[in-house]
Amino acid sequence: MREVFQQELREVQDRLVELSGLVAVSIDKATRAFNESDVTLAEEVIADDDKIDGLTVALDELAIMILARQQPVARDLRIVVSALRISASLERMGDMSTHIAQLARYRFPDKVVPKSLRGTFAEMGRLDVEIAQKLTELLRSQDVQLAETIRNDDDEIDALHLKVFDKVLGETWKGQAADTVDATLASRYHERFADHAVSIAKKVLYLATGDWDPDAPSA
Amino acid sequence: MREVFQQELREVQDRLVELSGLVAVSIDKATRAFNESDVTLAEEVIADDDKIDGLTVALDELAIMILARQQPVARDLRIVVSALRISASLERMGDMSTHIAQLARYRFPDKVVPKSLRGTFAEMGRLDVEIAQKLTELLRSQDVQLAETIRNDDDEIDALHLKVFDKVLGETWKGQAADTVDATLASRYHERFADHAVSIAKKVLYLATGDWDPDAPSA
Repeated sequence: MREVFQQELREVQDRLVELSGLVAVSIDKATRAFNESDVTLAEEVIADDDKIDGLTVALDELAIMILARQQPVARDLRIVVSALRISASLERMGDMSTHIAQLARYRFPDKVVPKSLRGTFAEMGRLDVEIAQKLTELLRSQDVQLAETIRNDDDEIDALHLKVFDKVLGETWKGQAADTVDATLASRYHERFADHAVSIAKKVLYLATGDWDPDAPSA
Repeated sequence: MREVFQQELREVQDRLVELSGLVAVSIDKATRAFNESDVTLAEEVIADDDKIDGLTVALDELAIMILARQQPVARDLRIVVSALRISASLERMGDMSTHIAQLARYRFPDKVVPKSLRGTFAEMGRLDVEIAQKLTELLRSQDVQLAETIRNDDDEIDALHLKVFDKVLGETWKGQAADTVDATLASRYHERFADHAVSIAKKVLYLATGDWDPDAPSA
């Protein structure tokens, strides 16, 4: 029974890694679609989200099946419950990518944000892609160092998020209302994407080391 | 054992009802703080969110303890797993109230949005309060009719959300960039609040009737 359980846990882990990998591809494509006003790429992101959603549902069903059949307790139980929560966060990260892609598609053939903010959004996108890639590796390797670097990347995203608002609310801002709306939403989506990654990293770190509070709401 | 389990499930249900009740108070206060630029009320909402977060953590611990001790299967297992998900959604609803209150506090003593949008936001707030109250009653009574009316209210919120964007992007919009940012964020928070409620209602309805897909991602 114990061996079957370990095998099933590995299956859960593999699927989390797969899901996280798809989310990394999704945010990478969404960022490029956004930066380059590439509507074909935006459509791909939007279509691929169904796959992410489907895998999330299947993963949750597997976790529930393991709870029913293996009746895990203590740390084993927390691993399975954490998997349910991690999959929910990954699913939301996919939604954030999709929302960013939708902004690009909606404004096409125009660019989503004016020139003065493009560098900032390119940087936010780059960081979110990096975060998703590190998260995938963290889920695969349980290398807890990665959790710390994800938290640092999130701090950078938060700083860029504030920078967007400083720009938009500053005296030199010449954007139309549509630009202001797009910048506000895109910045919020990037920030939430990173928040979800931090919340997942906390759970992995907690399971690996007992550090951090895995149940603390992620703001 | 079965009787203990039923008693523990009632405890979980009672706590979900309590949590949902606090969220209803929170969105009511946040809406009034937003409409009336009441900074004292806004501060209350922000402070009360810690209580909501604390109760969420305690409820999750109770659910995990029940999984460990009672080893539920089939429908009983799904009830406990659903409770974990419902508490996560309620926690996020509290965050949305808090964000709305923060907008009010940040702009104080100015009003958050210009006159032309106040009626729309008052209506969104009224609907979100109603949704939270219905949700509390749904969790208490399992009256599945309520789930349907929550879904209708959410459709109304979605329509108001689009109305805000039509207004802000329309030719008559005279708002500053700050007004545009605030309107965009506030509208998004109200819309997400209602989305979480619909996702909870789906889970309750599924447990009560088997209808709807409880695992379907809530967009």
